[in-house]
Amino acid sequence: MNGAEALVRTSVAAGVEICFANPGTTEMQLVAALDTVPGMRAVLGLFEGVCSGAADGYARMSGKPAAVLTHLGPGFANSIANLHNARRARSPVVNWIGDHASWHRPFDAPLTSDIASLASPVSAWLRTVSSADRLASDGAEAIAAALSPPGGVASLIVPQDCTWDPAPGAAPPRAPTAPRAVEEARIEAAAEALRGGAPAALLLGGPAVRGRALAAAARVAAASGCALLHETFTARIERGAGRAIVERLPYFPEQATERLAGLGELLLVGAPEPVAFFGYPDHPSRLCAEATRVQNLAGPAEDVCGALEALAERLGAPPAAPAANAELPGAPGGELSVGALGQALAAFQPEGAIVIDEGATSGLAYYALAAGAPPHDCLSLTGGAIGQGLPSAVGAALACPDRKVVALQADGSGMYTLQALWTCARESLDVVVVVASNRAYRILQVELGRAGVPEPGPQARALTDLTHPELDWTQLARGLGVPAVRADTADAFCEAFRRALAEPGPQLIEAVLA
Amino acid sequence: MNGAEALVRTSVAAGVEICFANPGTTEMQLVAALDTVPGMRAVLGLFEGVCSGAADGYARMSGKPAAVLTHLGPGFANSIANLHNARRARSPVVNWIGDHASWHRPFDAPLTSDIASLASPVSAWLRTVSSADRLASDGAEAIAAALSPPGGVASLIVPQDCTWDPAPGAAPPRAPTAPRAVEEARIEAAAEALRGGAPAALLLGGPAVRGRALAAAARVAAASGCALLHETFTARIERGAGRAIVERLPYFPEQATERLAGLGELLLVGAPEPVAFFGYPDHPSRLCAEATRVQNLAGPAEDVCGALEALAERLGAPPAAPAANAELPGAPGGELSVGALGQALAAFQPEGAIVIDEGATSGLAYYALAAGAPPHDCLSLTGGAIGQGLPSAVGAALACPDRKVVALQADGSGMYTLQALWTCARESLDVVVVVASNRAYRILQVELGRAGVPEPGPQARALTDLTHPELDWTQLARGLGVPAVRADTADAFCEAFRRALAEPGPQLIEAVLA
Repeated sequence: MNGAEALVRTSVAAGVEICFANPGTTEMQLVAALDTVPGMRAVLGLFEGVCSGAADGYARMSGKPAAVLTHLGPGFANSIANLHNARRARSPVVNWIGDHASWHRPFDAPLTSDIASLASPVSAWLRTVSSADRLASDGAEAIAAALSPPGGVASLIVPQDCTWDPAPGAAPPRAPTAPRAVEEARIEAAAEALRGGAPAALLLGGPAVRGRALAAAARVAAASGCALLHETFTARIERGAGRAIVERLPYFPEQATERLAGLGELLLVGAPEPVAFFGYPDHPSRLCAEATRVQNLAGPAEDVCGALEALAERLGAPPAAPAANAELPGAPGGELSVGALGQALAAFQPEGAIVIDEGATSGLAYYALAAGAPPHDCLSLTGGAIGQGLPSAVGAALACPDRKVVALQADGSGMYTLQALWTCARESLDVVVVVASNRAYRILQVELGRAGVPEPGPQARALTDLTHPELDWTQLARGLGVPAVRADTADAFCEAFRRALAEPGPQLIEAVLA
Repeated sequence: MNGAEALVRTSVAAGVEICFANPGTTEMQLVAALDTVPGMRAVLGLFEGVCSGAADGYARMSGKPAAVLTHLGPGFANSIANLHNARRARSPVVNWIGDHASWHRPFDAPLTSDIASLASPVSAWLRTVSSADRLASDGAEAIAAALSPPGGVASLIVPQDCTWDPAPGAAPPRAPTAPRAVEEARIEAAAEALRGGAPAALLLGGPAVRGRALAAAARVAAASGCALLHETFTARIERGAGRAIVERLPYFPEQATERLAGLGELLLVGAPEPVAFFGYPDHPSRLCAEATRVQNLAGPAEDVCGALEALAERLGAPPAAPAANAELPGAPGGELSVGALGQALAAFQPEGAIVIDEGATSGLAYYALAAGAPPHDCLSLTGGAIGQGLPSAVGAALACPDRKVVALQADGSGMYTLQALWTCARESLDVVVVVASNRAYRILQVELGRAGVPEPGPQARALTDLTHPELDWTQLARGLGVPAVRADTADAFCEAFRRALAEPGPQLIEAVLA
C-alpha cells in the first residue's frame, strides 16, 4: 500500500464519503487511490473554488467533512475564497493539497510556492506531511480537527513522495473533541438577565438556529418575553411554518444599531458579539449600545443546545413554545421586481427545500417573506466572499439527494464560480438556480452613495455595472449543460419556477429584474 | 485631497495608465478617485483572476505595471494564481488590496483575514499602509519595486481609512533600480567556455529572447557554433521570420535531459538552471548531466542584453547573424488534429500577432510550426497556474491596441477564467480566441500513465475527462458577449480563423479536435 491509498482508506474509515477534486500532476497517486479504495465518491469541479464551496455546502447539510483535493499553491489559492466562507461558517472541511515531492521543492520549479502561508489564513489546523509513514495518521488527525467544535478547515499539505512511497497501512479514526458544557453559573447569569425585566434578546448563531437548540430558544423567548435575533449571515438556519420565527439582524450598521438600541440585555448564543460588516467613518464597529449588557451564554465551541435547554428549564418554560406561523405569500403578478421575485420563491418553494441565498440585494425581500414558507433550510454567505452560492448548491445537493435545492443567486457573484453549473449537470443534481439578474453590482452602487459619491463618474459607473454587454445566463447555463429559460415578468417567473421545480436535475432561470 | 486621490495621482505621474479592478465596499474611495484624477483607465474584470492575469499580459507587452484593485483577503485570493504566473514571468504588477479601516480590523468582521500571509508568497515587495499620509509615497515605492530588475509583483495593503482620510498630496515618482552590469570576468569565462570546443548552448530566458538581446544571442551562436535554447515557458519571446530561431527546452524531463545530455557547457542567460517541472520517482530534479559545466552569464536582474553584446564582441562575432528562416507551413486539410490546428494557426497568423499560448498538449505542435510565421510575440504559461491565457489576452490587447491577439486556449484551463471573454467584449478588444477542445485534461491523462496507472479506473477517468456534459464554448462565448463559431475539420477551422482575423473585436472559435 502506498501513502495515497493509506490516506484514502483512513479517511473512508473515518467517515469521509466524498472528495471534491481538481487535481494536477502532483495528485495522480491520490486520484488513483480513489479507485483502488472503495467508498469515496470523486466529484470534479472545473475550478477549485467550486470544490471548496461544494465542500462547505456539503458540510453545512451533512455535518461531515468532504475532502477537497487541490494542486499545489496556485490550485489551492483558487479555493481560498470559499474556504474563507467555510471558515466563517465553521464548516468541517479537509483539504488535501498536493505539493512537489519533498526533495524536488528546493529546486524551485515553476509551480513551487509557499503553500503554508497561503493556507494558514483559512485553516484552523494545518500540517505539512513529513513522510508516507505519517500521511494516514496525519489524515486522521485532520478529520478530527475539522470535526472538533466549533468545526473548521483542516489543511494537509501532501508532498507527492508521501503518496507514492510505501506506507505501513491505514490509521485508526481519531475522535473529535466534544463540545464543552456551559457551567451553571453562566446559565444562571443568563436567567437573571432575562428575569430582570429590561428589554432583552438572544442573538443566535451557529448551531443555535437549528433543531433542538432552536426549539429551546423559542421556549426561552416564550417564557421570558425576550426577542430572538440571529446573526445576519448564518451557515444554516431552519425556517418556515411551525418553526420558531427568528428575526435577522439587519446588514447595514445604522439599521442594526437601531434594532439593538433599546436592549438592556443581549445574550450571545453560538454567535460573536455583533459588529459592522464594514467600518464607516461615522459609525462605530460595535453595533450594541454602551448601555446594553452583553453576555455570552454559549460560544460556538460549547454545548449551545444544552445551554439553551438548561436555560429554558431554569426559566420554567413550557416544554414547547407555541408555533407562531408567519403568513405564506401568494403568487405575485406584474413586473418582476425584487419583491415579486422573493414572493414567488417563498410561495412555491417546496417543503424540505434547501435554499442557498446569495441573492445579495435581491435576496433581502425573499428572506423576510420565506418565514411563512414550508419548513426548509437556508444557507447564506457567511464570510462575504462572493461566489459561494452555486458551489454550495452542488455540495448541499450531494449531501441531501432527496431534497430540492433552490439557489437564489445574484448575477455579479454568480459569475465568480459559474463553473459549478457544469458539476450540477454532470452529477444530475436537483438544483434550481434562480439568477437574480439586475445587471449591476447593486450593493456597490449603494455603497458608493454611502461613501459620499451620490453621482458616480463614468469609471465608477463602469466598475459597478454589468451591462455592455449584458450577460446571457441562459446561454451560459446551456454551454455548461444545464437547461435554462429567461423570465422578465412575475407571471413568467412563477410559471418557470414551478416548472423547474417539477423537473429532475438542474435547471436555471434567469430572472431579469425590473 | 484624500488618500485615495493622492495614490491615484502619484501612480498616474509614475506612469501607471490602467487599473484592472474588481472592487468592493472597502475600495469605494479608490474607485471614486479613478474619476476625480484623470489619466488612469479602469477596466472591470468579473473575477479577480481576470484582473491579475490581464495585468500580467499587459506588463509583458508594455513593460509597465498596471494596478490591480482587489477587495480584502478573499477578493485578493482569487487573483493569486495569475499573480503566481506574473511572479514567474517577472512581470511588474502593482496590487492595491483594500482592507478594512485599521480601527475596524480588530473586530474580526466576516471579511477579515490575514491578507499579508496570502500576499507574501506572490509578492516581491509587500507593505501594509499605516496612514493616509503614507499612502502616496508607499504607492510610489510599490511602483519602483515592481519595475526594479528583474521585475515583480508589489503588493500594497490599503486599510480603508487611509483612502478616506485627508492626505498631504501626491508623492513624486521613485526611480526603479537599474539592471546590474555583468563583470568582465564572467563575460570572459563565458567566451572561454564557448571557445573550448566542447558542445555548448546558451539557455535564454527573461529579456534574452527579445530585441537586441536576442539578436546578440544569435551573433554569439553564429560566431561560436553553440546552440540556442530557451526555457520551456517564456514570459514573452519574439519569434518568426527573420528572427533568431531558438529551440525550446522540452517539457518532459526525459526529453529535456536527452536534449541537454551531450553538452559540455551550458550558459544561463536570464534563465535559472533548468529543473524538471515536477519531480518523478525515477528522475532527478536537475536536467543537466553531471558532466555539463553550467555557468551563469547574466541573471534576470542583470544587464542581460549588455552581457550578450559584450560576449558577441569578445567572440569577434559579425554585427548581425544571418537570418535563418524556418519554413512557413501551408493550410492543412482533413481532420482537425492537434497538428492541423497548429499548422493553420502558424499559416494564417498575421504579422505582429501576439500569440498567447495556453494550449497545453494542443499547443506543442503549433509552437514548433510557428517558427516560420511572420514576426510575432508569443506569451506562455510561466508559472503553471492554469487560467492565464484569456486574462493575459485582455492585458496584451490593451497594451497593444494596434496588434491582433491570438489566444490559443486549452479547454480545461480556459474554464478557469472564462469571465475574461466578457472584458474582451466590453472593451472591444482585438482578440481571436481559439479553444482547443479535446474535452479532457489531456496532460493529466498522460501523467496518470506516467504515474503507473495505464488503465485508470472510473473515478480517475471522471476526474480527467470533460465530457458528460460536453462544454459548448460557442454558447459560453455568446453568453459573455463574444461572437463564436465551432469548427471540426481543418478546412472549417482555416475558414473560421481567417474570417475571425479579418473582423475587429473579439471572436471565439471552438476547435473541436479529432
